[in-house]
Amino acid sequence: MTYKAPLKDMLFVMNELAGLSTVNTLPGCEDATADTVEAVLEENAKFCANVVAPLNHSSDKEPSFWHDGQVSTSKGFKDAFKGFAEAGWQGVQHPTDFGGQGLPKLVATPCIEMLNASSISFALVALLSDGAIEALLTAGSDEQKATYLEPLVSGKWTGTMNLTEPQAGSDLAAVRTRAVPQGDGTYKVFGTKIFITYGEHDLTENIVHLVLARTPDAPAGVKGISLFIVPKFLVNADGSLGARNDAHCVSIEHKLGIKASPTAVLQFGDNGGAIGTLVGEENRGLEYMFIMMNAARFGVGLQGIGLAERSYQQAVAFAKDRVQSRDLAGSAGPVSIIHHPDVRRMLMSMRSQVEAARALAYVGAGISDVAHHHEDAAVRASNLAVYEYLVPIIKGWSTEMSQDVTRDGVQVHGGMGFIEETGAAQHYRDAKILTIYEGTTAIQANDLVGRKTVRDGGAVAKSIISQVRETEALLAAQGGADFKAIHRALLDGSVALEAVVEYVAANMKTDIKGVFSGSVLYLKLAGIVLGGWVMARAALVAQAKIDGGDGDALFYKAKIATARFFADHILTQASGLRTAIVEGSAGVLALTEDQF
Amino acid sequence: MTYKAPLKDMLFVMNELAGLSTVNTLPGCEDATADTVEAVLEENAKFCANVVAPLNHSSDKEPSFWHDGQVSTSKGFKDAFKGFAEAGWQGVQHPTDFGGQGLPKLVATPCIEMLNASSISFALVALLSDGAIEALLTAGSDEQKATYLEPLVSGKWTGTMNLTEPQAGSDLAAVRTRAVPQGDGTYKVFGTKIFITYGEHDLTENIVHLVLARTPDAPAGVKGISLFIVPKFLVNADGSLGARNDAHCVSIEHKLGIKASPTAVLQFGDNGGAIGTLVGEENRGLEYMFIMMNAARFGVGLQGIGLAERSYQQAVAFAKDRVQSRDLAGSAGPVSIIHHPDVRRMLMSMRSQVEAARALAYVGAGISDVAHHHEDAAVRASNLAVYEYLVPIIKGWSTEMSQDVTRDGVQVHGGMGFIEETGAAQHYRDAKILTIYEGTTAIQANDLVGRKTVRDGGAVAKSIISQVRETEALLAAQGGADFKAIHRALLDGSVALEAVVEYVAANMKTDIKGVFSGSVLYLKLAGIVLGGWVMARAALVAQAKIDGGDGDALFYKAKIATARFFADHILTQASGLRTAIVEGSAGVLALTEDQF
Repeated sequence: MTYKAPLKDMLFVMNELAGLSTVNTLPGCEDATADTVEAVLEENAKFCANVVAPLNHSSDKEPSFWHDGQVSTSKGFKDAFKGFAEAGWQGVQHPTDFGGQGLPKLVATPCIEMLNASSISFALVALLSDGAIEALLTAGSDEQKATYLEPLVSGKWTGTMNLTEPQAGSDLAAVRTRAVPQGDGTYKVFGTKIFITYGEHDLTENIVHLVLARTPDAPAGVKGISLFIVPKFLVNADGSLGARNDAHCVSIEHKLGIKASPTAVLQFGDNGGAIGTLVGEENRGLEYMFIMMNAARFGVGLQGIGLAERSYQQAVAFAKDRVQSRDLAGSAGPVSIIHHPDVRRMLMSMRSQVEAARALAYVGAGISDVAHHHEDAAVRASNLAVYEYLVPIIKGWSTEMSQDVTRDGVQVHGGMGFIEETGAAQHYRDAKILTIYEGTTAIQANDLVGRKTVRDGGAVAKSIISQVRETEALLAAQGGADFKAIHRALLDGSVALEAVVEYVAANMKTDIKGVFSGSVLYLKLAGIVLGGWVMARAALVAQAKIDGGDGDALFYKAKIATARFFADHILTQASGLRTAIVEGSAGVLALTEDQF
Repeated sequence: MTYKAPLKDMLFVMNELAGLSTVNTLPGCEDATADTVEAVLEENAKFCANVVAPLNHSSDKEPSFWHDGQVSTSKGFKDAFKGFAEAGWQGVQHPTDFGGQGLPKLVATPCIEMLNASSISFALVALLSDGAIEALLTAGSDEQKATYLEPLVSGKWTGTMNLTEPQAGSDLAAVRTRAVPQGDGTYKVFGTKIFITYGEHDLTENIVHLVLARTPDAPAGVKGISLFIVPKFLVNADGSLGARNDAHCVSIEHKLGIKASPTAVLQFGDNGGAIGTLVGEENRGLEYMFIMMNAARFGVGLQGIGLAERSYQQAVAFAKDRVQSRDLAGSAGPVSIIHHPDVRRMLMSMRSQVEAARALAYVGAGISDVAHHHEDAAVRASNLAVYEYLVPIIKGWSTEMSQDVTRDGVQVHGGMGFIEETGAAQHYRDAKILTIYEGTTAIQANDLVGRKTVRDGGAVAKSIISQVRETEALLAAQGGADFKAIHRALLDGSVALEAVVEYVAANMKTDIKGVFSGSVLYLKLAGIVLGGWVMARAALVAQAKIDGGDGDALFYKAKIATARFFADHILTQASGLRTAIVEGSAGVLALTEDQF
């Protein structure tokens, strides 16, 4: 149940696929030299493996708990968070102006993966702080930035996102929490928020709640939602802590997984009103929240990848250790189960999907860096469009993938996998939240269909597919059975994806329910095809390394074999998905409610 | 979280697809008239819904627990089992000679599904007793039958299967438990057995352990394993209980799911030896165990179906109740989420897969009845071969399906699904054992490939495919978009399955590891195609009923729509699976152990 960060794989993806050498020529990204990046990743890997990873299983057995409005986090979390903050890990990707390291997203990305592979429950507090920092950087006043950013970036305080209410889950139009202006620039906030991750804890002296609420004369629906800072303790002008604010944790949830992460019900204003300050302008809260949510969605995708990697590592270790039955090809006695073809199939399925999702996410991070740092506004804009197309896929597909992978992770263990002490089952439980929070897979798919495909008539999607075509040409030019299989599968996949993009763009107006019947399948198809694309690129790079006499042929041969597996076993799902999307809405929509 | 048995669906399948009207003409099955069967099912449904189903969630929260060698089962289980036994439900399918009801397997099958939908943890004790009864009927001496069968059939005692040891899971060749003859016809048994379901409990006064062990001069491997009866309490000549036997529960497991079902570590012979008697002949234990295991494997398939049905019902209820967001086609205010296309897609996916797996299992049960009761030995033999081909598919596919379905069941609930109080998460946890115990999916697939396909050169598989072809001809003759889509998908599926059967049969000798690389995928493909076949037959029956003016058109239209959904969304996976099986072994087998 140890975790060893796959640094070599991560660096391969960063250098060979995600363009680190381009990213670190961007203005403001020059510090991210290959050497520095490797050193940062190595330090991060040590911290994660030595300090955080050992807490994952023990904190599941003894979760955070609530008592008298307080939450005590699992044993070891407080010290680990102190170490995390002191080493500056909260600030990796945040501006140096506020004490961060100012490194590109491409460098922060593997750090986030590692932390989540070590413990999703622990990593969540950092993920939420990242989101709060992002929102304040975007929309906070100078005073708010001066007050809150440095403590958040340093890990002295943490941040939360308060969106959900009992009647307002996926539908934020239904938010009822009220914010009443007091005439002195502050507001009094009243309402109940649920599912607030780390809404209460004992890791830091203060918690900065970002809260969606309505002012008294706000319009109905999503256009009347504003964003407020409501700190647990008010902050004095000198930055010291003032009075306890009227924001209290009344309970935490009993959950399937991520048990060490306290999920709070927060009550605002039961004792006179919680003091808050407006972020940005009134009624623009959802817009700000979406900025932070896009960052968080990408981060949740990384949670899926990290968790799947951890599950894979544990399964490999078990498969090498557990001796059972003879080798099918003949053996003197029983062999370790990694010799059995179906165990190997499961391991390759896990491995190839983790590698594909990682490569796609890191490629996305590199694109995001170009989108934010490039000198040319047109280049920034085109890269931003591609990044924004990828975000729902990275979030939705990587997290759905993590449920497939952790399921196989249990299965590889046989009966031992079902025993909680083994630890494989925890990953299966933890994974289930990832397709739900920060927007369910269906919400990601709505975004992919509506804002990311239909709005531009599929232009961005097709521009990405044209890049896939370029890779296909390179594959066709390579010899050998592996590249032939990869080429054929990628071609079938990209044809299917293109057909679906056209179907979606063409039919939205006339058959909106039909199109949305296939939205999640479209997201899955896009994940598979784009994942297959980056795997194919990895295989091409690997072949070039081998041809160039690179010493590490075993590593590169494994890249080709893994891409081949992905092509034969995962990419081949594409044409079935195409049919389900394009032809399958009749079956989805035929029944009346009463027929269920 | 209530459960309502889908009696109408069950009776439809029994009458229209599984041939109840043929089964009840078989010798010994004449009591199973349509009226009797309906009455039995209605009574069983009442018992399950009123007595057992309410215990499912509470018993998960307060599982069975161990203390001083005893196991106290969850609150309510003792009374429920008493009621179960008194009503005669343990004996539904067992011979009247020993107090059973002597009903065909086709009638017992929905009863088993209902009990498992109500509580898998509870139903397991009955499932294990069924297996013990089956083994004793097959191989027990007259004295053993006289002593043990009536108390087992009546539910006065329960039975267990003791196979697994720490070093012997899937590989029973590694069994070490010893049985030493005492010269008086009894043996002393020594050893440790793990993962023994209901190996200890407080439901009944005695427990009949069936134990695999080796006699002193037994050959090595699976050919040296014998089967023994080792009761918890020895039984006197008059049937009364004698001394406590030396078989003790030293602990129970802390599991991911089915928490109310005690999974025992049993220690035999630590205090001088546990007294056992040999079942049948020495060294034929595995053969007897396989008889009972085949029955148990079919039963585990039903567990998957029952659990998936329960998860589906809960998801439908939530989707009708939970109001969130407007209708995509426009609505004045927010609507229940069953109006949203992706929720509906998930519900249809759950529904169609449950219906397909149920239909296939019930069809299998009907074939088993013909195989056991028909007067003509040749008819018995050909039906037995088909049934035995279906068993690993019914077990493997239905249980894998239950993991897909319960995952969607959580997803439909959104954030509430992740909260344990909701109950959806329990199904997701419970489902994970089903692909592991009674032989993992890979073990089922080994059986499907080796004994069921290669041994006869694919003859039985092809005989089933030729029946699928007959259905395809009927589909082609039907008009309309639904039947056109179903026909095309089934045709593609059956072509893929036939190609895979030929590949498996042809390549086993030259490329055994390659063939077994795709064994689980072959099982999945067979499940999908045969599931699609029975759904297509259901649609044809439904259309005939509609054409004939049957009053219940809504019910029959739903059958056609559900078959259409299955064709477009599930059957369309077939050609991708074919490629993965036939072309995909290179990627599975390429890496050396060190490359992992």
